[in-house]
Amino acid sequence: MTDVINGYAAAASDADLAPFQFTRRHPRADDVVIDIQYCGVCHSDLHQARNDWGNTRYPVVPGHEIIGRVISVGESVTRFKAGDVVGVGCLVDSCGECAPCCEGEEQYCVNQPTPTYNGIDRHDGLATYGGYSERIVVAERFVLRVPDGLDAKAAAPLLCAGITSYSPLRHWNVGQGDKVAVVGLGGLGHMGLKFARAMGAEVTLITRNRDKEQEARRLGAEHVLVSSDAAQMAAAAGRFDVILDTVPTAHDLNPYLAMLHLNGTLVLVGMIGPIAPPVHSGVLVTGRRSIAGSAIGGVEEMQEMLDFCAAHGICCDVEMIEMQDINGAYERLLKSDVRYRFVIDMTTLKR
Amino acid sequence: MTDVINGYAAAASDADLAPFQFTRRHPRADDVVIDIQYCGVCHSDLHQARNDWGNTRYPVVPGHEIIGRVISVGESVTRFKAGDVVGVGCLVDSCGECAPCCEGEEQYCVNQPTPTYNGIDRHDGLATYGGYSERIVVAERFVLRVPDGLDAKAAAPLLCAGITSYSPLRHWNVGQGDKVAVVGLGGLGHMGLKFARAMGAEVTLITRNRDKEQEARRLGAEHVLVSSDAAQMAAAAGRFDVILDTVPTAHDLNPYLAMLHLNGTLVLVGMIGPIAPPVHSGVLVTGRRSIAGSAIGGVEEMQEMLDFCAAHGICCDVEMIEMQDINGAYERLLKSDVRYRFVIDMTTLKR
Repeated sequence: MTDVINGYAAAASDADLAPFQFTRRHPRADDVVIDIQYCGVCHSDLHQARNDWGNTRYPVVPGHEIIGRVISVGESVTRFKAGDVVGVGCLVDSCGECAPCCEGEEQYCVNQPTPTYNGIDRHDGLATYGGYSERIVVAERFVLRVPDGLDAKAAAPLLCAGITSYSPLRHWNVGQGDKVAVVGLGGLGHMGLKFARAMGAEVTLITRNRDKEQEARRLGAEHVLVSSDAAQMAAAAGRFDVILDTVPTAHDLNPYLAMLHLNGTLVLVGMIGPIAPPVHSGVLVTGRRSIAGSAIGGVEEMQEMLDFCAAHGICCDVEMIEMQDINGAYERLLKSDVRYRFVIDMTTLKR
Repeated sequence: MTDVINGYAAAASDADLAPFQFTRRHPRADDVVIDIQYCGVCHSDLHQARNDWGNTRYPVVPGHEIIGRVISVGESVTRFKAGDVVGVGCLVDSCGECAPCCEGEEQYCVNQPTPTYNGIDRHDGLATYGGYSERIVVAERFVLRVPDGLDAKAAAPLLCAGITSYSPLRHWNVGQGDKVAVVGLGGLGHMGLKFARAMGAEVTLITRNRDKEQEARRLGAEHVLVSSDAAQMAAAAGRFDVILDTVPTAHDLNPYLAMLHLNGTLVLVGMIGPIAPPVHSGVLVTGRRSIAGSAIGGVEEMQEMLDFCAAHGICCDVEMIEMQDINGAYERLLKSDVRYRFVIDMTTLKR
């Protein structure tokens, strides 16, 4: 084993992803070295590769839905050993000392958690590179155990799309009989349907697309509302306890907010940007409704989610691709042409 | 006693309030007839008189912060008798059957609660007229007991300004050691400071006005932040569990949201309109923060608040006016020139 790693990177915002060699750090005492088997393709990978958020450091090796097998562990590692199947999600470090970190909410670390790629390692100051690569070196604290019985390739997207849907449903205490709506049927939305159903909720999909009804029912929805049908939308006024809004672009929240019951919450998990058109505060005031946001989940909650998936027989619906297909996959992603997550078979990198 | 009542009404959106005679209904079995002693002047009175919300039915007799003495009661009334000092707030009826009504949240009645003025009585279809008048007839269910020890005239604004501040602090479980900010120091804000302090919170006033520091401390604030001081605002990032935003006009929520701790909530209680400029969802997502709205409170909670005020020696800071001064008071209200609520001495109506 050498420290020189093969991966795929974008060298500039207008460049296709292409083969790229780089080095990983020598493992520290608390590090786990992971041979990457599968890596999910998140919309964030595309945003970051194309510098949509204006903060990309090139070259960037995307990928934060990582499943692999442990090759070796540092001397202080106690929870993993060579051969274990493990996962790594969006984060590889955090300060470990702030209130959110101490509460197991590393994703809200007030000193900024270290992202799996496009970040700077807190110890050596070097760039972090993601899962579009053959190996990764990650501190034990940020490595997840993949339970027996989970299909490893279909588990990869659980580490971002999965936890992003799971965490808010848990935080807002979704349970038996609650009425939950999921807006949008993509990577996040299809997991939202599965999780909410498994938690006992009565689940509704809200979608622009009339053709998605059968799919939605297969994934756990009891009801499907077409967002362009004003009569359907109005008839659902006041119905939902929680609305999980997975739409990745700006859209009018007012019609959704009106569908919340007293004390209901709409949680934004897909869209990062200005909320436009503006929300009318009247729809909040007249039902003590809330708009909230939620980001991925903490390490402990990610493990809980993986165990929940194993216990409930839940996984992502994935379409496998080869590493060499990544640029085409990005184009399809832009057209929402995937059911519901691309996963790269990382053995194809070696061809 | 006759059913013909003297009051003050606006006859049109551009008309001053002026003397107006009208009839009250003959008391029903569950009605309480109240001789009005004091009536607070709420900004809503002004909005409604001038048709700022486009739904005013003229003539309108404003006033929903009513304190008076019971003259007589209907045959089925059990909780009140002649001579009792009582209060009436923003609502005089609701369907009584929907889920919010059954949970004591009549203000969120899904069949629309009946407002104290500018409403339509659910039984006889007649217009409701408010507290700028000598008497009012209200169903027992919506009449509050004013506890001994509360100054009746200073208790009047508790019935709208008070409950509007109290209810969200209770709903979001403000208690010992919580960090609460109140934005704006008017009728609502000054009560927010008093209530949050009495609930045990560490209270901060956020205001545009550097001159309000001493006043804010007198009313319960430990800290004062000047919203135009960007450095002060930035230094408070992540500080608050709850922000009670009492500002009555549209304003940028983004700087306030950034001051919320993980899981914190900003509650809008003053502004009804589009939230502009737009909120950036990133500030919600990165701290699982929420924007919520809250409307007055239910009858049971209003009684709880009145009792809380008596127990903690809390009342509104009021400036007494005569009925004939109402138009001048409205002009001063528009300039925020009141500390902190006008209350009409309704005996002056008889001059």
